[in-house]
Amino acid sequence: MKGEFDLIERYFAPLAGPAGLGLRDDAACVSVPPGTDLVVTKDVIVEGVHFRQQDPANLVGHKALAVNVSDCAAKGAFPKHYWLGLCIPDRIDEGWLSSFSKGLHAAQTEYGCFLAGGDTTRIDGPVVASLTLAGSVPPGAMIRRSGAVVGDDIYVTGTMGNGSLGLWCLDNGRQEHPALVSAYQKPEPPFGLIGGFSDLANCAADVSDGLIADARHLAEASGVCMRISLQDIPLSLAGKALLADEPSLWSKVWSGGDDYQIVFTAARANRPAIAAMADKTGIQITRIGGVLEGSGVQLLDKRGEVVQVTSGGYQHF
Amino acid sequence: MKGEFDLIERYFAPLAGPAGLGLRDDAACVSVPPGTDLVVTKDVIVEGVHFRQQDPANLVGHKALAVNVSDCAAKGAFPKHYWLGLCIPDRIDEGWLSSFSKGLHAAQTEYGCFLAGGDTTRIDGPVVASLTLAGSVPPGAMIRRSGAVVGDDIYVTGTMGNGSLGLWCLDNGRQEHPALVSAYQKPEPPFGLIGGFSDLANCAADVSDGLIADARHLAEASGVCMRISLQDIPLSLAGKALLADEPSLWSKVWSGGDDYQIVFTAARANRPAIAAMADKTGIQITRIGGVLEGSGVQLLDKRGEVVQVTSGGYQHF
Repeated sequence: MKGEFDLIERYFAPLAGPAGLGLRDDAACVSVPPGTDLVVTKDVIVEGVHFRQQDPANLVGHKALAVNVSDCAAKGAFPKHYWLGLCIPDRIDEGWLSSFSKGLHAAQTEYGCFLAGGDTTRIDGPVVASLTLAGSVPPGAMIRRSGAVVGDDIYVTGTMGNGSLGLWCLDNGRQEHPALVSAYQKPEPPFGLIGGFSDLANCAADVSDGLIADARHLAEASGVCMRISLQDIPLSLAGKALLADEPSLWSKVWSGGDDYQIVFTAARANRPAIAAMADKTGIQITRIGGVLEGSGVQLLDKRGEVVQVTSGGYQHF
Repeated sequence: MKGEFDLIERYFAPLAGPAGLGLRDDAACVSVPPGTDLVVTKDVIVEGVHFRQQDPANLVGHKALAVNVSDCAAKGAFPKHYWLGLCIPDRIDEGWLSSFSKGLHAAQTEYGCFLAGGDTTRIDGPVVASLTLAGSVPPGAMIRRSGAVVGDDIYVTGTMGNGSLGLWCLDNGRQEHPALVSAYQKPEPPFGLIGGFSDLANCAADVSDGLIADARHLAEASGVCMRISLQDIPLSLAGKALLADEPSLWSKVWSGGDDYQIVFTAARANRPAIAAMADKTGIQITRIGGVLEGSGVQLLDKRGEVVQVTSGGYQHF
């Protein structure tokens, strides 16, 4: 394979925006327009942990950016610039890099941002793609985790559990649910929400560790209790079909992680506006519960009784 | 070991600055003062490539930040915020993490910046520390690689080759040169230069791939030839002593990499000001050549004759 600088020139320089200076300097130069806060997220994906060695390289490129876009979108920020730290072992060839960069290019085109810099280095181990994404919001407009108010409704975008059910299908040779596999390999965060979302939501987080774990983050930051009705958690058709066959997988719906959707709360008065936002953007938004005084996450079964869930959501280690 | 969120709370939240929101949100919120450009660098260090498994964890933490500070300093930018992507295998224990975070804390105190966010994840492989650093400069004041002018002098800070000679000492059980080992394990970029440097330098880069490779980057970006006199390249006392014993290591001086010093050019008229800056900061600054019309790097021996250097500087792959 060619040297580091040739690889950067061939596969990554074409992805660079103005701030990236053609990837021909030691650093990016970001001019931040007046009246802008930068919202900066960093999510790392590691081969064998967040994607599989067999996954198509273009989808790995897409995922590296998409998992950061979900954080940025949850904060109400439009993605602008990203930096890529890429560690590649000797077995990676130029075909893989070419495909990876094409996936990244497709994703940055979809999400409206540009590569601004990075570092490519050798590793004696798995592929690591460490991406830092900077988005922009008006000053003070970042949606925090800490803004939930007692009486708020709780919502999630999309449907839950698809990513982790898709990984289960891949690990178990089940090929009848391509939509679940696609949700794992090519997550599609609800980018379209970003526009009007800041004005409606009181708090938000992306769902990457599992709905319960991420709802708990909101509860802790806001000093409230998040009550979620399990039967209101939205499922995909493919998810329902798989769960009908494999009911033991149910916990993946609320604790599997890898969703890259958004959980947020909003005042009851915003129900019509949120319904209108769902219609306008085509993004499924489902009310799954409400915010109470107290702490933590409280789960209700279909009879409205509080239940325990054994697995508290995906955590590393 | 405890869960991801406990580790972040214990070891990394104490390093967070205001933009990091206590590491309790999905993203940092960076308010950029008017009249500021953000200079953003990203250097990844990988165990087995940029540091050794045996290296003290606090020095690994220092190095993760220092290798980015050298890029930031070379651009004339004061470090402000950084994001850390940390991949750790199961064998890493809390003692290692505690020591790593202490090294990072000492380094951020030295360099005047704060942790603003990041991601901690498992890896089945080597430790990876992927750091993104944002510094600030007045608008348009970032020192580019592309500004060298024919007739400029070429300078380097510090002394060359210490890092790669130090690694050689470690790999070969040579314990008589602790200063070289320290240069490898705990690089100290010329942070003190940042203040008055932007007004004096026409172009600059950090020396991380080796003096020749990095001077070539300046030559290419500026469309000039960089003529460097080999005998003017500054050496440390320890470096001289080792090279007297092991003359085969000479090429590490100009192509070993791992220096994290700065190579820059400046107009002849700035010679007195640069001498004054060296005096004021205590940073060694040595004139090693001049900028000519042409391209690439030209090396002169002590008789002033052009010579070839076989190894062109350290490149990955």
